[in-house]
Amino acid sequence: MSKPYVVGIDIGGTNTVFGIVDARGVVIASSSIKTRKHNTIEAYLDELHTELTKLLEVNDAVDKIHGIGIGAPNANYYTGTIESGVNLPWPTPIPLAQLVSEKFGVPVSITNDANAAAIGEMTYGSARGLKDFIMITLGTGVGSGVVINGQLVYGHDGFAGELGHLIVKRNNGRLCGCGRNGCLETYCSATGVARTAREFLEARSNEPSLLRNMPTDEITSKDVYDAAIAGDKLAKDVFEFTGDILGAALADFTIFSAPEAFILFGGLAKSGELLMKPLRESMEKNMMPIWKGKVKVLLSELKEADAAVLGASALGWEAKFQPITPSAVPVAPTPSTVPTTTPLTAK
Amino acid sequence: MSKPYVVGIDIGGTNTVFGIVDARGVVIASSSIKTRKHNTIEAYLDELHTELTKLLEVNDAVDKIHGIGIGAPNANYYTGTIESGVNLPWPTPIPLAQLVSEKFGVPVSITNDANAAAIGEMTYGSARGLKDFIMITLGTGVGSGVVINGQLVYGHDGFAGELGHLIVKRNNGRLCGCGRNGCLETYCSATGVARTAREFLEARSNEPSLLRNMPTDEITSKDVYDAAIAGDKLAKDVFEFTGDILGAALADFTIFSAPEAFILFGGLAKSGELLMKPLRESMEKNMMPIWKGKVKVLLSELKEADAAVLGASALGWEAKFQPITPSAVPVAPTPSTVPTTTPLTAK
Repeated sequence: MSKPYVVGIDIGGTNTVFGIVDARGVVIASSSIKTRKHNTIEAYLDELHTELTKLLEVNDAVDKIHGIGIGAPNANYYTGTIESGVNLPWPTPIPLAQLVSEKFGVPVSITNDANAAAIGEMTYGSARGLKDFIMITLGTGVGSGVVINGQLVYGHDGFAGELGHLIVKRNNGRLCGCGRNGCLETYCSATGVARTAREFLEARSNEPSLLRNMPTDEITSKDVYDAAIAGDKLAKDVFEFTGDILGAALADFTIFSAPEAFILFGGLAKSGELLMKPLRESMEKNMMPIWKGKVKVLLSELKEADAAVLGASALGWEAKFQPITPSAVPVAPTPSTVPTTTPLTAK
Repeated sequence: MSKPYVVGIDIGGTNTVFGIVDARGVVIASSSIKTRKHNTIEAYLDELHTELTKLLEVNDAVDKIHGIGIGAPNANYYTGTIESGVNLPWPTPIPLAQLVSEKFGVPVSITNDANAAAIGEMTYGSARGLKDFIMITLGTGVGSGVVINGQLVYGHDGFAGELGHLIVKRNNGRLCGCGRNGCLETYCSATGVARTAREFLEARSNEPSLLRNMPTDEITSKDVYDAAIAGDKLAKDVFEFTGDILGAALADFTIFSAPEAFILFGGLAKSGELLMKPLRESMEKNMMPIWKGKVKVLLSELKEADAAVLGASALGWEAKFQPITPSAVPVAPTPSTVPTTTPLTAK
């Protein structure tokens, strides 16, 4: 392959991390800039261009970039646009794929962060060899990427796979950021765990708990984890409650696409048996009989620091938005020769 | 095309209907046999072979069959097997695709009845031109066929798309045939509607209703429909209740695959605004904001009598199970010349 690398860019609310990745999924080099430093997308892309070009030069990778993949909140794979980036400082919609493609002179694809994680997992992680799986990212919210027959599901409009917004409690459910009540992510995200802890502390006010040693408003899911590991009953019950809801939701998801496995990713997925035991029990209890005992729950194998960049980078192998004005190209002066048929799983 | 027809076979619990279909979706001729007349699958297939051969001869269609598609309960597309046919009189598993392929000497594919309906709708009905839609069949149970990017979703094991078994009531839900409680189909099937009517009659025992003119145990969804059309308040409330639950479920399904449309099929789907008005209102009320007002609810355009046969027949254009012993072939003596590349949507 004449151009042996791809670039992965993960645009988060705070940091933008980018890296050069080879076809085996090795992150050759990576760096980052602050996402919120610039008021315009143009100024932001200027800095990204400068810093990425530096990284390419240092690693002798100029002219060796096959494509760029970007993971970003609310990014639409079909349109290449960030349609409403609630947590980004620029006016939306942002035609990000086209802007970056023009800027760097190479093909670009974008998708949302959970989808990028699913692609990363399929290309380099726990999902290698799986054609039907569902990635569940347990972070500030609950994200998901659904893979069916080896293809990521984008749906009619590019926004498919919002499994964090399954309504798991139809009456008196918690208010969700989406404006509705009772969504899965209000219970099974890191913030959901903290919220459950606060509710339990209030409802069981006579029960001692290590979590009473800190201001209630400052409790994080990490605090709940630490307390549970230290044997705190209330904290352990929070994980029981969380696993119970998440397991039932995974059983519900199974009826849709009959996946071979769920792959859990994110901070909360590292809670070990505290979460996994009630999760598995609830999933099996709620599972339709034909799937009982048949659907695996796996943990991501990607290093968290690399995962976002890796997942995004995998899109670079089949990036779909081509630069319109290839003459303005510092990185890849002959983009018309960039092969476009390399499969995602190219070795 | 040298072989211009396909055969569709719909194996129901009572009748087996089969028809000869041309590439435009016209049912040239059809007939049926009783499903339960024979104690062995071999005797049943003997009769099917005799009757189908007659139909082919009368219609000058012998040697003109490209393939056979079969819709049957619990039929697995991948394995070609009926894995556990709860409502069929023969021991399972039944390697149906292979048996029929041998018997008739042409390629055969099988799938479950709701998937067959989805394929029929995509090939000849309301879903022509749609790449992302979900078929919901409202019959004795609630079946579904999920189409993503133009492909029917079979999942890891061939059983994907059991949307009738979404748990819509997690506490004190109605007992479902699957062994769990609270499944969608216990509320929104024809039997679910009758069940709701009986519950309402008991709970609102002081309220007059036309439905009190018949034995409670014999009430069908058709009776509830007739009463509602006649202005009966309780019967209208049954449809309100049913539409409310189904609409919320469709909103839940949307987060998975972001379909362009849901297509409703089956007796209950013909209830008109009695069902559709509360259904649409509930779907919109429960819809995640990014999809509000964007997902259509359509009714099947296929004639009910033809739909099952048509849907199954569409599978015949790309049937995957080839006869192993082509010498035993009365219908198509030269199966090796059967082209296998005709697309499903061939005109």
